[in-house]
Amino acid sequence: MSIETIKACMGEIPFDVAIYDVRLLNVFTDEIYDADIGIAGDSFAYVGKFKKEHKVLNCIDGKHRFAIPGLIDSHMHLESSMMTPSAFAEAVLPMGTTTVAADPHEIANVLGVDGVKMLCSLTRDLPLHVYIMAPSTIPSAPMLENSGAEITGKEITEMLRLPGVHGLGEVMDFLGVINCDEKIMGIIDAAKKEGVLLDGHTPLLKGEELEAFVASGIDCDHTFMDPEIVKEKLSYGMYVQIQERFFTKELMSYLNSCPVQNRIMLVTDDVPVSRLAEKGHLNFLVRKAIALGLDPKKAYRYVTINAADRLRLFDRGAIAPGRKADLILLDSLEEVIPSLVMSDGKIVAEQGSMKISIDRRKFPVSAYQTMNIEHVSEKDFEIPCSGSAALVNVIMQDGKTSRTHLEQKICQVENGLLKQGDLVKMAVFNRYKNNNNRSIALLGNLSGFRGALATTYAHDCHNLTVYGSNDKDMCIAANTVISTGGGVVAVQDGQVLCSIPLPIAGLLSEDDIRTLSDKFSVFNETCKKMSLNHEEPLIFLTLMTLAVSPDVKLTDMGIVDVTTKRFLPLIVKILDEGLR
Amino acid sequence: MSIETIKACMGEIPFDVAIYDVRLLNVFTDEIYDADIGIAGDSFAYVGKFKKEHKVLNCIDGKHRFAIPGLIDSHMHLESSMMTPSAFAEAVLPMGTTTVAADPHEIANVLGVDGVKMLCSLTRDLPLHVYIMAPSTIPSAPMLENSGAEITGKEITEMLRLPGVHGLGEVMDFLGVINCDEKIMGIIDAAKKEGVLLDGHTPLLKGEELEAFVASGIDCDHTFMDPEIVKEKLSYGMYVQIQERFFTKELMSYLNSCPVQNRIMLVTDDVPVSRLAEKGHLNFLVRKAIALGLDPKKAYRYVTINAADRLRLFDRGAIAPGRKADLILLDSLEEVIPSLVMSDGKIVAEQGSMKISIDRRKFPVSAYQTMNIEHVSEKDFEIPCSGSAALVNVIMQDGKTSRTHLEQKICQVENGLLKQGDLVKMAVFNRYKNNNNRSIALLGNLSGFRGALATTYAHDCHNLTVYGSNDKDMCIAANTVISTGGGVVAVQDGQVLCSIPLPIAGLLSEDDIRTLSDKFSVFNETCKKMSLNHEEPLIFLTLMTLAVSPDVKLTDMGIVDVTTKRFLPLIVKILDEGLR
Repeated sequence: MSIETIKACMGEIPFDVAIYDVRLLNVFTDEIYDADIGIAGDSFAYVGKFKKEHKVLNCIDGKHRFAIPGLIDSHMHLESSMMTPSAFAEAVLPMGTTTVAADPHEIANVLGVDGVKMLCSLTRDLPLHVYIMAPSTIPSAPMLENSGAEITGKEITEMLRLPGVHGLGEVMDFLGVINCDEKIMGIIDAAKKEGVLLDGHTPLLKGEELEAFVASGIDCDHTFMDPEIVKEKLSYGMYVQIQERFFTKELMSYLNSCPVQNRIMLVTDDVPVSRLAEKGHLNFLVRKAIALGLDPKKAYRYVTINAADRLRLFDRGAIAPGRKADLILLDSLEEVIPSLVMSDGKIVAEQGSMKISIDRRKFPVSAYQTMNIEHVSEKDFEIPCSGSAALVNVIMQDGKTSRTHLEQKICQVENGLLKQGDLVKMAVFNRYKNNNNRSIALLGNLSGFRGALATTYAHDCHNLTVYGSNDKDMCIAANTVISTGGGVVAVQDGQVLCSIPLPIAGLLSEDDIRTLSDKFSVFNETCKKMSLNHEEPLIFLTLMTLAVSPDVKLTDMGIVDVTTKRFLPLIVKILDEGLR
Repeated sequence: MSIETIKACMGEIPFDVAIYDVRLLNVFTDEIYDADIGIAGDSFAYVGKFKKEHKVLNCIDGKHRFAIPGLIDSHMHLESSMMTPSAFAEAVLPMGTTTVAADPHEIANVLGVDGVKMLCSLTRDLPLHVYIMAPSTIPSAPMLENSGAEITGKEITEMLRLPGVHGLGEVMDFLGVINCDEKIMGIIDAAKKEGVLLDGHTPLLKGEELEAFVASGIDCDHTFMDPEIVKEKLSYGMYVQIQERFFTKELMSYLNSCPVQNRIMLVTDDVPVSRLAEKGHLNFLVRKAIALGLDPKKAYRYVTINAADRLRLFDRGAIAPGRKADLILLDSLEEVIPSLVMSDGKIVAEQGSMKISIDRRKFPVSAYQTMNIEHVSEKDFEIPCSGSAALVNVIMQDGKTSRTHLEQKICQVENGLLKQGDLVKMAVFNRYKNNNNRSIALLGNLSGFRGALATTYAHDCHNLTVYGSNDKDMCIAANTVISTGGGVVAVQDGQVLCSIPLPIAGLLSEDDIRTLSDKFSVFNETCKKMSLNHEEPLIFLTLMTLAVSPDVKLTDMGIVDVTTKRFLPLIVKILDEGLR
């Protein structure tokens, strides 16, 4: 409350800003009607037709546009954009997003609690309101990989007491929860003691397993959704957060028919910078959902009041007296192109461009020092092997997604070294102070690829990961990334074709959305020219290390069978000449 | 969470209790379906058909009854029942109420923060879950009356930090809010600093005045509701709490049609013990609402999940894994007669009777010492007056409600004293340590009444209030109440016809519901025999002092014109013989 809000509403002092002549979407009554909006300070003070006693300092002509509450993303990760928080804010505010709940899972894998503190400090007082969720599952696959930190109940308590930290980030170890794993129970317990909301991640679970998960007190999920899954999750009282990639006509039709609507949301989760630049943020989700048949008013509720209520942010999510004056004006409910965006009662963007400048606050020096790894040599990529050939485990990628399967193939051995033939070598180097792990695997379904790619953005541990058709290019790629303090690099025939530095924690660039998305366009083109057989190079690059996603992945500790949580050897059997 | 809940759900350990074969009302999906319910400790562990791996310690046959979450009253005052918290719990648990948000406005008027502390202590760990709201408006009409305490922002902060205190009780000074009165702003500010929910009380307000009230951050109301008012309040994002006395067919039909349902609740506010005994608690509201046409599933949502969400009690309000195992079993959704009531996973009532005994915790001695007033004499009721007659202000009661209006009448004067004629004298004696105020008024529309009534339960200051046709009976009535440490008394011809001691703060009896409601039946009969012209003696008795309710009332400071907030003289003009 500010007393000014009440006084302006009563006509005793002028509104700071008044928007007259809008078509207001009232998310509480599901109506759209003609209205004026009075704003005092950072809050809505009056909604309705202005009375004669109302006075105004600054007037905005609503031009009969739709007035919608600022969009709220109730589950996302800032780092997926590879931008700093201020650059991200500049990117999404013009798209209409004014509040996000961000789980800094990536930077916490690299920098631990310090990384979360940095994000808290860098998001404070941004015109994009950022609520940090304490990352709960680091590393994602304990015993199978090493990241830069480990989060236990103790760190959760520490993080939840930081200003700006709002709840417990998605608990990904769903099997740990239903099996009452001591560590994850300690984490949930710590969060419950602080009385915060708890986010979950429950792919695959259903029936009594899902009920057991919910019994832990975690009441939210954003993984795969279809009508049947949505219905089951709602029936247990879960909040259902739907990502764009699961949108179907069938799902939208089901959502239209749900009798109880307030636990449904649309969320972005991860949006890479190129998609953000090309398609948009929550506004894209709303547009696509409506195009697939979702009732527009429901679509907006899912990203405004429903999200606010879920996040227990009772001061926003609607254009109503006393609430934060975050709003967007739209010409069309279906196109969702904000012609004006207001945050805290101030115009922050118009016609897709920022109207205010955001202070580019710098990360501290320590965020730039996360490549704890010496330069490598070609030798580091060699696979010593006796005999004249060997049966090896090969990770077969599918060219489309992050799914893989295992095959066994025979490779030649020359001069005591395994030859990769038309397979691609993949190497993971731990880049943290705690150890010096490195591991190598071979990937299939990539024949034709020539050169090397390296990245420090590699889920979830973000170790230095290199893919290549030859050791020389791999070595150059790795050393280039080490030199830039992290990043993404493409090398061919000894030449660096493309290098995108991500010097902040090896995850984030200092570029703005336009510059960075252009760089990734070039990178994607480069990968195509290098004949990389994957529709989305970034998915390939960053997810072949994700040891919680099926079926076979490579971490700094070795080849992981994700389903059984066991390591697989690279070389299955040495073959001598006679046996072949 | 308890690990046991998860393990029982997974079939690793047995359920403590299992209820098989119920028709479950799922408040999240608006469905009713056949199910079994597994309970571990105080929580639901599993909801669905039991699997073969599930084990059970104690089995309850659901007999195909309806299983409904325990009913939640999101706004009420315990003291209206005139029972202790434990007696109240014993009264309402068999009716299906398992959680209440109680604003101890009455006891705080008498005992201040100490009274709130007593209620916190006496409600802790009851099988009826009581969440205390910090009373915000004490005295209700500052400058017009004196109660035993004054609540400012400082006391609010103190109360909100007590264990068991959950939010800010209804802010009744709605004019203070929209006029930014310093004291009430301090109270709201103190509550907002603690991050709690804020309850309101906004009769009459609409349009920009109501918006200004909502702009303060108070987002709840339970005063008069009709479809138009409900719609307006919802449109500003308010939670709408509907009392039984405002139920109409028209309103129920409107509620059925509301597109956004989650901010609607049914609440009891005040239920006197006789009505409680005769009709019931929330179960009566649900029954009546359904009888008037409200969709049964909505009716139940209004007193379960909607109330839980409003109260931010995310651990209850539904029969779903992990939530508190509070439930009722019903044969009929329309009759709402619980045949079994469970709280925290234990059967507390069956077939309308308690099945467990509740420890009758005692209020501390200081709660019994609130009659800070010496015995009175007949002289205290005399109205000295010169002349031979006088024009006097008379409070005309309407025989039905607490409404009054003012008339002026002529009374005779004899021996220097005003004669009351067929008017009834009303006297208010301050009973607190801070002053010695006493005041007298005359009431009309009561001719025929013979004798005297006295009460210490008299809204909102609960001063000793006496009504009578003659000074002698009034004196006896007053002294009887002083002797019992507070209470309600009827006297005629020098005989005490009926005395109901309310020794705890002058507000509460030590009786159970049956005993106390029987006593009030006798009292009501007695009032009828005494020819009291009012349909509900208790309303007459306790509300003629309420200086925030129109139109003219008497407080310890004098006759109050409620609308203008001014005092009126009893004697308007001395008349001498010649002028008449």
